[in-house]
Amino acid sequence: MSLYHPATEQLELTAVLHALSDPQRLRIVRELSLDPAPRPCGSFELEVSKSTSTHHFRVLREAGVIAQQEVGTARLTSLRREDLDERFPGLLDAVLAPVSAPA
Amino acid sequence: MSLYHPATEQLELTAVLHALSDPQRLRIVRELSLDPAPRPCGSFELEVSKSTSTHHFRVLREAGVIAQQEVGTARLTSLRREDLDERFPGLLDAVLAPVSAPA
Repeated sequence: MSLYHPATEQLELTAVLHALSDPQRLRIVRELSLDPAPRPCGSFELEVSKSTSTHHFRVLREAGVIAQQEVGTARLTSLRREDLDERFPGLLDAVLAPVSAPA
Repeated sequence: MSLYHPATEQLELTAVLHALSDPQRLRIVRELSLDPAPRPCGSFELEVSKSTSTHHFRVLREAGVIAQQEVGTARLTSLRREDLDERFPGLLDAVLAPVSAPA
């Protein structure tokens, strides 16, 4: 079964913002942004159940934020940084920027 | 009754992203970004019911995206652009940028 991935020109801003609006999903994206090498979903330390984790990866994939590729028994995940930068310039950089500390 | 508004340093990225992740709310923010003068909630042409509209304005206000001020019988709305730019540099600009047309 092949996994659904929207094409770059199909990415919708509201869907991407929604995908990024959850703390656990934002954490996945932050981790992926640090290392471009695809990595197994199970390698993320998330504070949620396996089924919730699977849900989060699906939301990110269907919004076009991440790509997932089945390799043997593993599902490898990577950030679609170039696609996101092309479609929504500056968005990912702003979201991933360190939040300024409270004054 | 005074309306709740989070302080600038309390703004949370995920709450702001969530507030911006709805097409109607994004439309409100786009309209507010075009004219800094506070305007009545009723002046936005939204394709939703009055109660849904009130909900959308509340989500935006509680996330710190907009400010609402009771003036007489009107509730005036304005974009918290400076607060958002201070806390999440580049985010609002990226969200409000025109989306590149499909190739």
